[in-house]
Amino acid sequence: MISVLLVGKGNVAAHLYTAFLNAHNINITQISSRNLDIIPKADVTIIAVSDDAIAEVSSKIKNDFVVHTSGSVSMNDLKNNSKKGVFYMLQTFSKDKKVSFSKVPFCLEAKTEKEYKLLKTLAKSIGKKIYSISSEQRTILHVAAVFVNNFTNHLYKIGNDICKENNVPFEILQPLIKETASKIETLSPKKAQTGPAIRNDEKTIKNHLNLLNKNQQQIYKIFTKSIQNGDKL
Amino acid sequence: MISVLLVGKGNVAAHLYTAFLNAHNINITQISSRNLDIIPKADVTIIAVSDDAIAEVSSKIKNDFVVHTSGSVSMNDLKNNSKKGVFYMLQTFSKDKKVSFSKVPFCLEAKTEKEYKLLKTLAKSIGKKIYSISSEQRTILHVAAVFVNNFTNHLYKIGNDICKENNVPFEILQPLIKETASKIETLSPKKAQTGPAIRNDEKTIKNHLNLLNKNQQQIYKIFTKSIQNGDKL
Repeated sequence: MISVLLVGKGNVAAHLYTAFLNAHNINITQISSRNLDIIPKADVTIIAVSDDAIAEVSSKIKNDFVVHTSGSVSMNDLKNNSKKGVFYMLQTFSKDKKVSFSKVPFCLEAKTEKEYKLLKTLAKSIGKKIYSISSEQRTILHVAAVFVNNFTNHLYKIGNDICKENNVPFEILQPLIKETASKIETLSPKKAQTGPAIRNDEKTIKNHLNLLNKNQQQIYKIFTKSIQNGDKL
Repeated sequence: MISVLLVGKGNVAAHLYTAFLNAHNINITQISSRNLDIIPKADVTIIAVSDDAIAEVSSKIKNDFVVHTSGSVSMNDLKNNSKKGVFYMLQTFSKDKKVSFSKVPFCLEAKTEKEYKLLKTLAKSIGKKIYSISSEQRTILHVAAVFVNNFTNHLYKIGNDICKENNVPFEILQPLIKETASKIETLSPKKAQTGPAIRNDEKTIKNHLNLLNKNQQQIYKIFTKSIQNGDKL
């Protein structure tokens, strides 16, 4: 039995708590980060708070092994005086949407093999995909995730705006969006590229620009150039 | 029984041919667009050739009802002397990947109700999602598709580049990519937006920019600004 103390009440903490509750080998307790004067002892203390609060919250925890769940904070930014680690799940967590932990990649980091193994056992109790990822690699994953998640979602918003302004149902684009995401499981994104930019179809590009507002035009032009440049900077 | 003549040998034509072969109420014949001197008569002739070739190919066809399959060509760009229409499937077709036609949106257009009904019967013989879409609406869908498909795929490529340059496996991002695409089935893209830009997390944004090359930085900056501007132009 592994005892886990979960510090935090946000989305990630809420989903993790539910998952650990259902794991047979985990004894889970959850507390708020505002109440750290007297806290329960635990084999692993998981701090699931906002990035900016990690240093301060960790400095107040006297438990033996403290890890955080952030994609962009280094392991050494933990300010506890004992063992440190990272328990980062690379997925987007929404309040009202159930998470399939079996599909979530767990990116783990610790200073010794023994501590890494403990995190691995923890991750395996709720998930399947486990990766050993250093703080440097995690930073890289995080910036790549901004492109494929945050910026991609913004492209969906622009697509939605264009449809709304012209009374076309956005739902027609949903199957295309899903197929675009699925395609790169079997094809590299470079090989999967289609559209007027890669075909250098100037007539269509000109027609498209005429339909867009200034902000949309700017993004359209930069992508067209970037797609056409290939791997040149 | 509806007789269909399919003109063209590309990806769209190949997938359509296979689908119609399996439909019980369709009699399908396929020919190349290079051989239009003597062609079989048919209730509907579907021209599935490149956008630039549609006008010329259609001008050579004497059959009664001629439609094209393009997202960006107007119905009136067909140069046959008889009935015209559009049979546009909004999906990305790859050579080696099977298409689930039941999920493909069929965007149909014709000049009379009778011709529209014929196209609808045709679409229903292989698919399920049928929409009546004018040439103007189709142009809008096409430009929106460039954002959510072509440009999104380019963001995947950049994510892949960043991982490759830093020896991190890109596959770790795959579940996130799929979840980002699925999320907007239940949440509007505006509400689904997360990340450092919308949080105005300047420290993370600065750190990320330091990890990117010039082209990636330019895209990062423009998206951050566009996300933060919301609906302002």
